[in-house]
Amino acid sequence: MKKQHISDAVIRRLPRYYRYLDELHSRGVVRISSNTLGKRMGVTASQIRQDLSCFGEFGQQGYGYNIMELRSEIGRILGVDEPRRLILIGAGHLGHALLQSFDFAQGGFRLDTAFDVSSALIGTSINGVAVRSMDELDAYCAANRPAVAVLTIPKAAAQETADRLVALGVRGIWNFTNVELSAGDGVSIENVHFADSLLTLSYRIAKRPETEKESL
Amino acid sequence: MKKQHISDAVIRRLPRYYRYLDELHSRGVVRISSNTLGKRMGVTASQIRQDLSCFGEFGQQGYGYNIMELRSEIGRILGVDEPRRLILIGAGHLGHALLQSFDFAQGGFRLDTAFDVSSALIGTSINGVAVRSMDELDAYCAANRPAVAVLTIPKAAAQETADRLVALGVRGIWNFTNVELSAGDGVSIENVHFADSLLTLSYRIAKRPETEKESL
Repeated sequence: MKKQHISDAVIRRLPRYYRYLDELHSRGVVRISSNTLGKRMGVTASQIRQDLSCFGEFGQQGYGYNIMELRSEIGRILGVDEPRRLILIGAGHLGHALLQSFDFAQGGFRLDTAFDVSSALIGTSINGVAVRSMDELDAYCAANRPAVAVLTIPKAAAQETADRLVALGVRGIWNFTNVELSAGDGVSIENVHFADSLLTLSYRIAKRPETEKESL
Repeated sequence: MKKQHISDAVIRRLPRYYRYLDELHSRGVVRISSNTLGKRMGVTASQIRQDLSCFGEFGQQGYGYNIMELRSEIGRILGVDEPRRLILIGAGHLGHALLQSFDFAQGGFRLDTAFDVSSALIGTSINGVAVRSMDELDAYCAANRPAVAVLTIPKAAAQETADRLVALGVRGIWNFTNVELSAGDGVSIENVHFADSLLTLSYRIAKRPETEKESL
């Protein structure tokens, strides 16, 4: 496939396409037109065709897309079919919740070990994932070369831990610390900033004329 | 303030400005130029000036911004200074983690009650927040008129619960269910799609030429 610059907006829509196609596939739908898919997703048919054209040719004029094929193509583009190793740093409340309920395998990630500094957690296992001491991180990374680390640790330790992970060869950081991390070229950081997200919602409801004040 | 259309991109940057200013303020910094702020945040100074000009006049040519003032102005724009009531639906792993570790008050939200269907949880209290039965939701909403609901429930119940909340007067839904929800005009939905976020990271690291395969 020819390399070209693909915009951030397109990249962010890919997982949404994947999710919709996955849902349609699991409901037994076999084929869908870009019009119908667009209507469901709230984007235009031409947007979908344009987005997908960044990655090759999909669908057949007048016949729409074969859902299973398109889903697996997008999965391949997203890297879901290349299993990669992932570790989680910080098995506190949020780390624990992700270990218990998030399906890492569905994204093509293999997770067997989490790391923490708390002696109450070290040596335990959460949903089949072993919690080990941060002292064992270097040896684990040398032996297993994880591609991605999930960072669910307190703010204060965020940058220092990110630096350590990058030095150990981690290429992607899924960052829940609500701190803007810096990392060198060749390392991708994907932020989940809860506070930013809730404040965006706060803005949207604040701007709307209120018919009635909430009692507080 | 004159109403004008403000783009989604600008709205999404506001909480980031707020977060940076908050951090600078807490470190005792009093004043900052748009150049310095931009460098820290990885945006241009003119971007910052343009974004802020959507909301009024800030800063003084040649003197930069007074951090405390700008922070409190942006907070006001985001609605942080109007306390609003928030409820959480679903006190499972993720809901529990948010109750334990997310600072709702910082965003101007007042949270005293969560709802669940599990009899093991109903009647308990998590970090000072009472967990009540979903059967009590209607009466609670009638009495307390919450503005926002956090949705941390299984996919299957997501749309139905959202419909119920909207009928009860909720105007904003913070959606962690990984399902695209539909709601009428006048209701804002803010999604935190973990799976989409991790797949975006997956794409970014997959596209990079690998010097070495991870062992799996």
